[in-house]
Amino acid sequence: MAEPATATQAAAPVVALLKDELDIVIPTIRNLDFLEMWRPFFQPYHLIIVQDGDPSKTIKVPEGFDYELYNRNDINRILGPKASCISFKDSACRCFGYMVAKDPSGKAINALEQHIKNLLSPSTPFFFNTLYDPFREGADFVRGYPFSLREGVPTAASHGLWLNIPDYDAPTQLVKPLERNTRYVDAVLTIPKGTLFPMCGMNLAFNRELIGPAMYFGLMGDGQPIGRYDDMWAGWCTKVICDHLGLGVKTGLPYIFHSKASNPFVNLRKEYKGIYWQEEIIPFFQQAVLPKDCTTVQKCYIELAKQVKEKLSKVDPYFDNLADAMVTWIEAWDELNPTEPVPNGKAA
Amino acid sequence: MAEPATATQAAAPVVALLKDELDIVIPTIRNLDFLEMWRPFFQPYHLIIVQDGDPSKTIKVPEGFDYELYNRNDINRILGPKASCISFKDSACRCFGYMVAKDPSGKAINALEQHIKNLLSPSTPFFFNTLYDPFREGADFVRGYPFSLREGVPTAASHGLWLNIPDYDAPTQLVKPLERNTRYVDAVLTIPKGTLFPMCGMNLAFNRELIGPAMYFGLMGDGQPIGRYDDMWAGWCTKVICDHLGLGVKTGLPYIFHSKASNPFVNLRKEYKGIYWQEEIIPFFQQAVLPKDCTTVQKCYIELAKQVKEKLSKVDPYFDNLADAMVTWIEAWDELNPTEPVPNGKAA
Repeated sequence: MAEPATATQAAAPVVALLKDELDIVIPTIRNLDFLEMWRPFFQPYHLIIVQDGDPSKTIKVPEGFDYELYNRNDINRILGPKASCISFKDSACRCFGYMVAKDPSGKAINALEQHIKNLLSPSTPFFFNTLYDPFREGADFVRGYPFSLREGVPTAASHGLWLNIPDYDAPTQLVKPLERNTRYVDAVLTIPKGTLFPMCGMNLAFNRELIGPAMYFGLMGDGQPIGRYDDMWAGWCTKVICDHLGLGVKTGLPYIFHSKASNPFVNLRKEYKGIYWQEEIIPFFQQAVLPKDCTTVQKCYIELAKQVKEKLSKVDPYFDNLADAMVTWIEAWDELNPTEPVPNGKAA
Repeated sequence: MAEPATATQAAAPVVALLKDELDIVIPTIRNLDFLEMWRPFFQPYHLIIVQDGDPSKTIKVPEGFDYELYNRNDINRILGPKASCISFKDSACRCFGYMVAKDPSGKAINALEQHIKNLLSPSTPFFFNTLYDPFREGADFVRGYPFSLREGVPTAASHGLWLNIPDYDAPTQLVKPLERNTRYVDAVLTIPKGTLFPMCGMNLAFNRELIGPAMYFGLMGDGQPIGRYDDMWAGWCTKVICDHLGLGVKTGLPYIFHSKASNPFVNLRKEYKGIYWQEEIIPFFQQAVLPKDCTTVQKCYIELAKQVKEKLSKVDPYFDNLADAMVTWIEAWDELNPTEPVPNGKAA
């Protein structure tokens, strides 16, 4: 690295795995001074910065980073009328990670390196391994794990966690304002097939070739009846499609340190509909079945949009709009990614 | 405690939760000197010692413990012809735990206390929580976890893990003789509904009111074509029945320190049939469906025995005998536990 590491960071040079294949997406409304703290880990990679809010404001990016920046005007220009499917002013646009966290030995956590390791090693969604990720150093499959399942499946997404301020909903924030997550759980594990999880968008990496078209963060925030469910929506859709296509989702390491709690009163206003809607949304996703001819993420996603329209529009007319936006998203995706889609994994 | 703790143990007195409700089952072929190391944690509880091998041999139990001991003669006397369902000379009869382990802060692990905590707090099998067990101190349900599922379900089993010598099958032992598990993962988690796991019988606690009749370790060892699959068999049956009855199974803490690797050549001889049989057994259990009128563990278990006979006898005639033994086990269970069985949880 040309740039010296700060005191909080590891001095060892970073081996930049996937240097030309990996992009780091940073949604932001502020200057990106926090990038200084990530410099030893992020500088070898290309950044895609999505500017939320007022497009006339200039976002400052520290020198030495290779980046492209898109504001709302750029998105409107690129997508034209299809830009309607892109939400603004919602939690997913806030931050990628506030601060570098440390592991229990006091070493700075290279979150990016851990995400890359997670994505490059297979997942094991069909049977639980009690040593957790069998592909980590010092681990393997335990006695009783079927040998036919030990090859694993490709990993589509790596979901990192939070230390310090926990990722609670507004009611829990209000009830437990002082609770902090201090437990560093040294594990990566595959979320089993058929099990949904609450995917947080703040510390997330994914293989866009495998699952990109499912990572749509819905219609949230400005002008919408709901917020703070953008990443949850993407997580439910992603997991159902990964399960169908035989792809894996890992959760656990890396941790990031989350230093600034969001305002629980504001969160409550954004969330309250989601809190009761999710009681119907989650059973919907738990029961969703995709037909065998859905062999690409795009086909799966269009099918899911159809089922959302059929089954969730009765919950609220919002889901009718959301289903339309899901279709628009895929149209926009295919417009910007014109190559012939390759079948991902094998249908389940 | 009347007895001073040894250097490896915590000095603090143990609060003996479930003092009159909990039994500790110890299968053994040796004198129980290792109990000295567990004295501060075990002494308040009643021990049930199952003597494996030659019944004329006297097993020495350190003074001060409250115990009952059964050898093969006792078992034959109590069960009569039904004693045929009880295996001898197999791994599950070896040891409960060899040595007290320490957590990363150097404190001795009170495995029993952790198992009790796991059993007394609910499980969450229907949706994954990224802070793991939400009932541990300092944790809760994260954003996006449905409120209707936060009550959880009763926990039927608590599956602890191994530090040091990992619980590998013979082929992995042979390939990785020096591998040690040094990763203390500070987590307890519910195995999601619909997911099977490799249950090890060496560090296991369960609520016998809820799941006892499913904890049958099969026909293994002496006179049988297979060994070292006793706990696996119990785990598959237990998990399928827990899923059906709406009960939970937790895995993770407590760790025990496993100091003595078993002989991989002996293990290979015992295991080799299991290694290919499990390729058919596991899909069988993954697809097993129990009818709604199976509302007790006994009814579920008899139904599973029927399905084993129907679907696994073609793998090997052994499964025909095993299915019969499963029925005998339930008959013996009901004979020794004559009270009217109470429906457990709710049928799924």
